[in-house]
Amino acid sequence: MQEQTLATASLRREKPEALSTGRAARLAIRRNQHAGPTSGLAPGFVQANLAILPQALAQDFLQFCQRNPKPCPLLGLSAPGDPRIPALADDLDIRTDLPRYRVWRDGALVDEPSDIAKWWRDDLVTFAIGCSFSFEQALLEAGIELRHMTCDCTVPMYRTSVETAAVGPFHGPLVVSMRPMKPADAIRAIQITTRFPSVHGAPVHIGKPESIGIKDLARPDWGDAVPVHDDELPVFWACGVTPQSVIMEARPDFCITHYPGAMLVTDRRNTEFAIM
Amino acid sequence: MQEQTLATASLRREKPEALSTGRAARLAIRRNQHAGPTSGLAPGFVQANLAILPQALAQDFLQFCQRNPKPCPLLGLSAPGDPRIPALADDLDIRTDLPRYRVWRDGALVDEPSDIAKWWRDDLVTFAIGCSFSFEQALLEAGIELRHMTCDCTVPMYRTSVETAAVGPFHGPLVVSMRPMKPADAIRAIQITTRFPSVHGAPVHIGKPESIGIKDLARPDWGDAVPVHDDELPVFWACGVTPQSVIMEARPDFCITHYPGAMLVTDRRNTEFAIM
Repeated sequence: MQEQTLATASLRREKPEALSTGRAARLAIRRNQHAGPTSGLAPGFVQANLAILPQALAQDFLQFCQRNPKPCPLLGLSAPGDPRIPALADDLDIRTDLPRYRVWRDGALVDEPSDIAKWWRDDLVTFAIGCSFSFEQALLEAGIELRHMTCDCTVPMYRTSVETAAVGPFHGPLVVSMRPMKPADAIRAIQITTRFPSVHGAPVHIGKPESIGIKDLARPDWGDAVPVHDDELPVFWACGVTPQSVIMEARPDFCITHYPGAMLVTDRRNTEFAIM
Repeated sequence: MQEQTLATASLRREKPEALSTGRAARLAIRRNQHAGPTSGLAPGFVQANLAILPQALAQDFLQFCQRNPKPCPLLGLSAPGDPRIPALADDLDIRTDLPRYRVWRDGALVDEPSDIAKWWRDDLVTFAIGCSFSFEQALLEAGIELRHMTCDCTVPMYRTSVETAAVGPFHGPLVVSMRPMKPADAIRAIQITTRFPSVHGAPVHIGKPESIGIKDLARPDWGDAVPVHDDELPVFWACGVTPQSVIMEARPDFCITHYPGAMLVTDRRNTEFAIM
């Protein structure tokens, strides 16, 4: 159940009409005028992974993010019970502004609502975690092919033999996404994504999948396999599925996540997060 | 003859006593108090490859450097007949400040003097070209192993199937140096050397030597072979042997280069050339 529920392969693939700003996208979603995946929505604006946890667990999870910044780059954090995240947008209500959510009790999926008003509690803390959409935009603008886009599928993701730094109940393997590239593109991609530490940053590995416990590139743990040509290297980035996977493993008594592919769209621009 | 004369494998290996500044090193060399290789001399100060050409050829060679900045990063350029390069040091006389030179006529080696006073001409233009010593210091400071240093030998260099951009008589293949690294170190090395575009900058290739025409890593064209372990990738940087090789191919009626390993030591610090 857990792996299936994290899978994104079943997402609807139709490209939504681009809304021009993060705010426009968020308001359309709030009014139920957009219910699908957010990929391609509000181009140039940062999208984020969502994790909402009870305050009793939030302290440990915050420490987990701080100790594992590559898979868990924390873009925004709410006060307990506060549905706003001013760091990411002025007009943002985390209870209504994602197209779809997943609600979990004791590790079991209990609801997939389009808003979480009825699930809201005064002790809930929201974590907005950086997402690869931001650096992928920069790679595309540099003319680098992203194979999963060419193949119109979901980026392949793999559980590695690399352990995250454990904090309290939160522990588990680093999950990585893989993009095959020719060597010169791989070098350029390392340079470009180094500029974006808030959205996973530079790759964590290149070229030797067996060194990080990946036995077969053709069998990803999440997403879809893509071809890797003889003159290409597989390049691996820390993936936002890591914190989701770690939360599921911890089986919190209550938590809310985004529905796969239905991310939080913010008012911040991807370019704001470039460090140089 | 040409390949042998470019070889650096025969350099004396004794480490000279470090002189504290580039100026101190240069003055000791000028007074014939230091005659060996310059590696390890004046740590932290930039060393450079030397090419001295008649003005008639210098214009083409300058254009060649500008069109091929990765193998030929131009750090300093003299006025015709002027033995100074103020951009690199105040007290610098290119005729006396290298431990040893090579003098060429029509592509043939005619002298290996410790100064070039008797060969000096009013039409000679000096090119000081960046050298990998600068970025290697930054890699070592980051804790990255450099295999050729571990093996106490010369970095392996390879002629590639990649052509430089030709200008006038100057043309020929890109020459690269190779350093094997574990993937995480390779990613870090790409980040670090990206900061130093004036001294070859980021690697030009990683992981697939056959893609750039290198058939056997165990048989370098210059320098010494080093072991590449199964969990490592070969990482390739554009090499300052490229301009030397290109000049030799052009067989100028007259030119002077540094003796292999006996570089120009400058007053500029490696850290000055970091772009961030």
